[in-house]
Amino acid sequence: MRFLVGTSSDGTAVYSMDGDKAVNLSALDARVGSDLMGLINTDGLLDEVAAKAASAPRAAINDITPALPIENPGKIICLGLNYVDHIKEGGYDIPEYPALFMRGRQSLMAAGAPMVRPTVSEKLDYEVELMVIVGKGGRHISEESALDHVFAYTVFNDGSVRDFQRKTHQWTPGKNFDDTGAIGPISVTPDELPEGAVDLKIESRVGDEILQSASTSDMMWSVAKTIALVSQYTTLVSGDYLAMGTPPGVGHAKTPPRWLRPGETVECEIEGIGICASPILDEINLTRREAL
Amino acid sequence: MRFLVGTSSDGTAVYSMDGDKAVNLSALDARVGSDLMGLINTDGLLDEVAAKAASAPRAAINDITPALPIENPGKIICLGLNYVDHIKEGGYDIPEYPALFMRGRQSLMAAGAPMVRPTVSEKLDYEVELMVIVGKGGRHISEESALDHVFAYTVFNDGSVRDFQRKTHQWTPGKNFDDTGAIGPISVTPDELPEGAVDLKIESRVGDEILQSASTSDMMWSVAKTIALVSQYTTLVSGDYLAMGTPPGVGHAKTPPRWLRPGETVECEIEGIGICASPILDEINLTRREAL
Repeated sequence: MRFLVGTSSDGTAVYSMDGDKAVNLSALDARVGSDLMGLINTDGLLDEVAAKAASAPRAAINDITPALPIENPGKIICLGLNYVDHIKEGGYDIPEYPALFMRGRQSLMAAGAPMVRPTVSEKLDYEVELMVIVGKGGRHISEESALDHVFAYTVFNDGSVRDFQRKTHQWTPGKNFDDTGAIGPISVTPDELPEGAVDLKIESRVGDEILQSASTSDMMWSVAKTIALVSQYTTLVSGDYLAMGTPPGVGHAKTPPRWLRPGETVECEIEGIGICASPILDEINLTRREAL
Repeated sequence: MRFLVGTSSDGTAVYSMDGDKAVNLSALDARVGSDLMGLINTDGLLDEVAAKAASAPRAAINDITPALPIENPGKIICLGLNYVDHIKEGGYDIPEYPALFMRGRQSLMAAGAPMVRPTVSEKLDYEVELMVIVGKGGRHISEESALDHVFAYTVFNDGSVRDFQRKTHQWTPGKNFDDTGAIGPISVTPDELPEGAVDLKIESRVGDEILQSASTSDMMWSVAKTIALVSQYTTLVSGDYLAMGTPPGVGHAKTPPRWLRPGETVECEIEGIGICASPILDEINLTRREAL
């Protein structure tokens, strides 16, 4: 199935996609709730609502504003270096273990929402990535069974503020500016894609300018291998996000550097999943702050 | 006030300490709830329950098993290098910006609970640290007003699996093994301590063996400076944990290295706050896994 989590006049709901129409699954069964957690955590619910969806009324997608597929993830774990040509452009050696870091919830926003260029830096960069939404949790998951733990795949823009990323050897600050990591809008169950989401075109662009273009088959660590490696040290739990790293072509590696500018819209697309578009907004033009 | 969050036959509750006795604040007002979030988020509640606590019945501390002061923190942000002599013992240059990383919830456990040495490594190390529990959230907090955002201070053992910490330049895996970061058991409001929690003896030990011993005044980045720096990139929210880095004397820097061994109990103490003790347990002897 293909899901869109989003807000309309009916509130925030989980929709299943049917072409350019959408079925409000949350209206079909209250257990679905307002993000994918209900479907992940309730045995059999996905099949139940899928059966009901066939004859349910359709809504227009344009009336739905995307929200995060998982609103309050337990963890957001990201691979830093997973495409060989991106590792080289950053000046790093080919590693024997993935570079892993974490993002916090405040750094995330839904597809379509502004990607905020902070007041303290102009070095805002894009990174299109395949993102895994963890279904069944676990520890010490074997590579062979790892894909059983994927609930869905979605698109991630691992927005990075490069000077803050490299203030020290730890990338955390540059990867955690508020409203820089865009997720969605479509989440796709694994049965809709090649096993492990390989061989999908992955691209980022601004208008006609193609910034990154590669294939998910270029990933050094597959989804299965990554789940196995990460679960060696931490228990993965339902709703965790796992970002799979970005292909070459990031802005800081271009000559001259290609930073995102207010007024532009960056689009991240993965074949078979969808397009995650983010208009760039200067922080000084933010008029609204979420209540804390 | 001094708080103990813990579980007894009455369930999990927030207690205020009165010598070696404790008052169940959650029983005095249901809004307190089962961790410090209720007191943080409900204006005036702390004063209300403090007034009622004076004449409330006392429980014996020994009947209370510590729980986390904040059960589900939004973020766990940690400073890696904050004491000059610890930076030198690790072979790092004195940085001009703090090395920041994040831990996930699964890596944390309450004081008194087992600290788990994983099956994949014997290089389990201790790190006593001052930990801040964020009260009022905010972004772009000034250094001058930063201490207004501290709800309480507690003790943290930033347990680290050193070979996994240094598999790449990103420390995340070694800082995120399940059940390696101990917090508590006592949380102290700022009025009970010197401003910014400076000038407190900070120590770790196993039995009579003193492992680390320093003063919180040796921190390069003060609590106020750290809150200002971190809130430059991320919105701090109520209940976030902020760990302030460890003094010299960690196990991996000793000759020969001094790893924690099953059967030992490591104690981390900060003057005026309390002792966080963790018995070391081999992962293969874990008989229980939390439900996912």
